[in-house]
Amino acid sequence: MSLLDYFRSSKSKTATVAKERLQILVAHERYYRDKPSYLPQLQEELMQVIRKYVQVDQDAISVKFEQDESQETLELNIVLPDSQAARSSQQDTVRAL
Amino acid sequence: MSLLDYFRSSKSKTATVAKERLQILVAHERYYRDKPSYLPQLQEELMQVIRKYVQVDQDAISVKFEQDESQETLELNIVLPDSQAARSSQQDTVRAL
Repeated sequence: MSLLDYFRSSKSKTATVAKERLQILVAHERYYRDKPSYLPQLQEELMQVIRKYVQVDQDAISVKFEQDESQETLELNIVLPDSQAARSSQQDTVRAL
Repeated sequence: MSLLDYFRSSKSKTATVAKERLQILVAHERYYRDKPSYLPQLQEELMQVIRKYVQVDQDAISVKFEQDESQETLELNIVLPDSQAARSSQQDTVRAL
């Protein structure tokens, strides 16, 4: 199963609502369990980067953090606002200048 | 299928080699196909953030970019060096001071 397939299958649940969505996943396989996880702090910085590209409302982000004995995953699901199209086009224009 | 399950299943192929790995996935569902993708540029910035936390050799990164009619996915697979344990512990100490 490819990653694109994974997202395709998970997408079908909300396929009737044509929202733009951005999903960021971080998986860390760890073999040194004595160290604290840096994923929570990483998450903050990732969101700062994302905000350079798209406008994100705080309540449009859902975060899931899972952990087992050998790995941890961080999942950020962001629903992009409808006005995104206009805003991103502007940014693209600026970038192209 | 949860995301943790997805990584668990994809991990089994290399489970015999006890390497630390970091995997970053970005999926963008798009409904405005006229705009250029910002994922390639986002990828650069994500790597800059990652490098604040872990030492990453350029040849330890594999990048996969997939695209279909409604979404695009960016996949970064990073094998962390064995010396990572020592380095990260140092960083954690500094951060805790």
